[in-house]
Amino acid sequence: MATKTLASWATSLESSSLPSSVKQAAIRSLYNYIGCAIGGSNHATVTKAHDALSPFFGKATSTLFGHKGGLRADAQHAALLNGIASHVHDYDDTMLATIIHPTGPVASALLAYAEYKGGVSGPELLCALTAGIEASCKIGLAVWPEHYDIGWHITSSTGGIGAAVAVGKLMHLSEEQMAHAIGIATVQVIGLREMFGSDTKSFHPGRAAQSGLLAALLAEKGYTSSPQALEAKRGWANVVAGGGTPKLQKYLAELGEKWEIEANAFKPFPCGIVCHPAIDGCIQLYYEMEAKGIRAEAITKVEARVHPLVIELTSKRTPKNGLEAKFSVFHGAAVGLLFGKAGPAQYADNVVQDETVIALRDKVNATAEKELAADETYLTVHCSDGNTFEKHVKHAVGSLEVPMSDAQLTEKFVDQVALVLGEDAESASEAAWAIGEAHDVAKALRAL
Amino acid sequence: MATKTLASWATSLESSSLPSSVKQAAIRSLYNYIGCAIGGSNHATVTKAHDALSPFFGKATSTLFGHKGGLRADAQHAALLNGIASHVHDYDDTMLATIIHPTGPVASALLAYAEYKGGVSGPELLCALTAGIEASCKIGLAVWPEHYDIGWHITSSTGGIGAAVAVGKLMHLSEEQMAHAIGIATVQVIGLREMFGSDTKSFHPGRAAQSGLLAALLAEKGYTSSPQALEAKRGWANVVAGGGTPKLQKYLAELGEKWEIEANAFKPFPCGIVCHPAIDGCIQLYYEMEAKGIRAEAITKVEARVHPLVIELTSKRTPKNGLEAKFSVFHGAAVGLLFGKAGPAQYADNVVQDETVIALRDKVNATAEKELAADETYLTVHCSDGNTFEKHVKHAVGSLEVPMSDAQLTEKFVDQVALVLGEDAESASEAAWAIGEAHDVAKALRAL
Repeated sequence: MATKTLASWATSLESSSLPSSVKQAAIRSLYNYIGCAIGGSNHATVTKAHDALSPFFGKATSTLFGHKGGLRADAQHAALLNGIASHVHDYDDTMLATIIHPTGPVASALLAYAEYKGGVSGPELLCALTAGIEASCKIGLAVWPEHYDIGWHITSSTGGIGAAVAVGKLMHLSEEQMAHAIGIATVQVIGLREMFGSDTKSFHPGRAAQSGLLAALLAEKGYTSSPQALEAKRGWANVVAGGGTPKLQKYLAELGEKWEIEANAFKPFPCGIVCHPAIDGCIQLYYEMEAKGIRAEAITKVEARVHPLVIELTSKRTPKNGLEAKFSVFHGAAVGLLFGKAGPAQYADNVVQDETVIALRDKVNATAEKELAADETYLTVHCSDGNTFEKHVKHAVGSLEVPMSDAQLTEKFVDQVALVLGEDAESASEAAWAIGEAHDVAKALRAL
Repeated sequence: MATKTLASWATSLESSSLPSSVKQAAIRSLYNYIGCAIGGSNHATVTKAHDALSPFFGKATSTLFGHKGGLRADAQHAALLNGIASHVHDYDDTMLATIIHPTGPVASALLAYAEYKGGVSGPELLCALTAGIEASCKIGLAVWPEHYDIGWHITSSTGGIGAAVAVGKLMHLSEEQMAHAIGIATVQVIGLREMFGSDTKSFHPGRAAQSGLLAALLAEKGYTSSPQALEAKRGWANVVAGGGTPKLQKYLAELGEKWEIEANAFKPFPCGIVCHPAIDGCIQLYYEMEAKGIRAEAITKVEARVHPLVIELTSKRTPKNGLEAKFSVFHGAAVGLLFGKAGPAQYADNVVQDETVIALRDKVNATAEKELAADETYLTVHCSDGNTFEKHVKHAVGSLEVPMSDAQLTEKFVDQVALVLGEDAESASEAAWAIGEAHDVAKALRAL
């Protein structure tokens, strides 16, 4: 029943009946995705893939994000390349219950197809995006944690199915066709955790997007699969959970009752999530000190009491470049106190190698306290004039308890997009916020 | 070490050092593949996929088999569509130890890429094909039987890796690049047994071909993956064997010592393999009776003693069409005795519904004897003039003990290709036999 349940729910979902909180979550997810896809677009990982595949591009219908003046590819390649770009900085969204990054695979397929098709409205797009994200997250919950423990990259292994559902909605597939689209997506299981640290990690959401799009395209022309693709004895869930205990029926029964997209979280800083409380606190302290006219030069010592995982994962003392700095809580704290910001620009190689940054970084100490929560920290900053500043961060920004505000999402977008598009970042941000209301998504995308 | 072992062996394999028995096996595998790909090319499953994807085709560089006058697509789509066609009649080759159908995924990627690239010689192609097939089969052996038992379609789940190795060879990848190509292929795990009986079954080898080609294309441009992709704790073998006991090192150590391609078997009849002994015996009896001037009209009764699986799987008494006839040992025996042949033409709907065929089919009886081997049968044919003919088939044609001869492969090729290309089947057969000696494979393919 699971495949039928999902197909039936997805095909009958209507934009007009989405709760406004869900619509808002979809708008924020899409906006954050576009920022990440543009922000990652000039990364070497994307460039290599582009170089390898451009000889095979078909008719140029669909935008490749991040190119001034516009660059397009066929929808399948656009889905792949934008999907890679959206994940390459590890800066995308997270559904914390399963650590799925849900929007990348779904939106990459959806936007590429919407632009190819033309005439898709913003509300229609948001409804399809929501359907796809709910699909990925519900089936992800059903196979969690066995699936991830075995070694699958759950973002892409569930994302292809979400992408098929989303594109299938834009195609107005019948319930039966939608079930086949889901089935064709289930046989393309993408992503191994073993690849973390290599280019292939970000290939995963891109290929999942492309696989889901392909599944929907085939199903639209009557291509058949198994109507029990998800739940059969040798169907997707049992196979990918490796003899675990998939709970498909339980989670799919909650479709439309409990909306996973509402719990989608966004990373405020482009580095390991365990550093986020310390960075958040340092940025807050930057503003408090600034209000009193105290500059970072006055700082003599910074003490951070943190969860033990912070020390275990991010205690790189002398990072040599941006990539290493992602694993340095000392760097994150230093740039937070120096600039009141810890965006991609503060993780650029030249900032990591800057003398002022290094000097402050060397003054930061961190000690593990296992009583602290993972998203909690206590900070103390000592200044040369004897002043002392303290900050207790109970939940870091970007957590479910303290979600990023729209203003913070905008700052994140503009900061990363400016590194690619320069002064066009502000107008791109406005265009991205407005896509959900567009008359024709294709035109809105070209305005990016 | 497994990934490195495979990459190192594959990159250093040389055409000139292949044993002649291996070369011969590669020529036969390629020839049989081309016949199946042309034979399946006008099947509805292929047509639907073609219709769905032709709007996305890139530059038309690579032949889609089975179209008079030539039809081409970009290499990625040609790999996909030819791969589907090669498997759609379940008439392709089989490596009996793992029931991998090895040539489909590997050759579909390889030929599409060779034609795109140009200037690839026949011997170079055969060497790459051999490398790819050995790769698929060795890693297949390493995860057999756990992998198949869980529910993976082992043809495609191993075939993508074989395709990457094969294409990577034509690209002259370095050992390091080849390891990355293997790694990128490992994260695209294609094919669930749950899909058997639907269009998606033949999608599997097609998509595996395309995934392997993609992996090689990316690796060629420096795209990276894990250097322990196959063997890591959370690498391919452990993940897809679901906690089984992959024997990678054992089988990869035999690369170049024990050649799996030499044990590649070819199906003589387009139906379930368990019927093959009875059909084989009936065809032999056809010729014996013909030599004595006795025609099938004289037959009053046929008795077959068969392995119990024959009754369990293929005892459809009154098949209504070609698909059902594949599950009727009675039909297979009847056409064998009537025509001395059981090719695709004898499984056409109009033959299945023919009165003479039905009349003889109704005279065939089969009884299970568990003492018989699976590829063994005893046949007795009674005639109206009192004559009786007997035949003991110890090993059916197409088994390892009685492999199909080149002449039988040619007959199989011509029979299925004639249904698509008509009188051009003979010249296509000659061209296909000659590809291994071609100066430029691209030109040879266009002559098909």
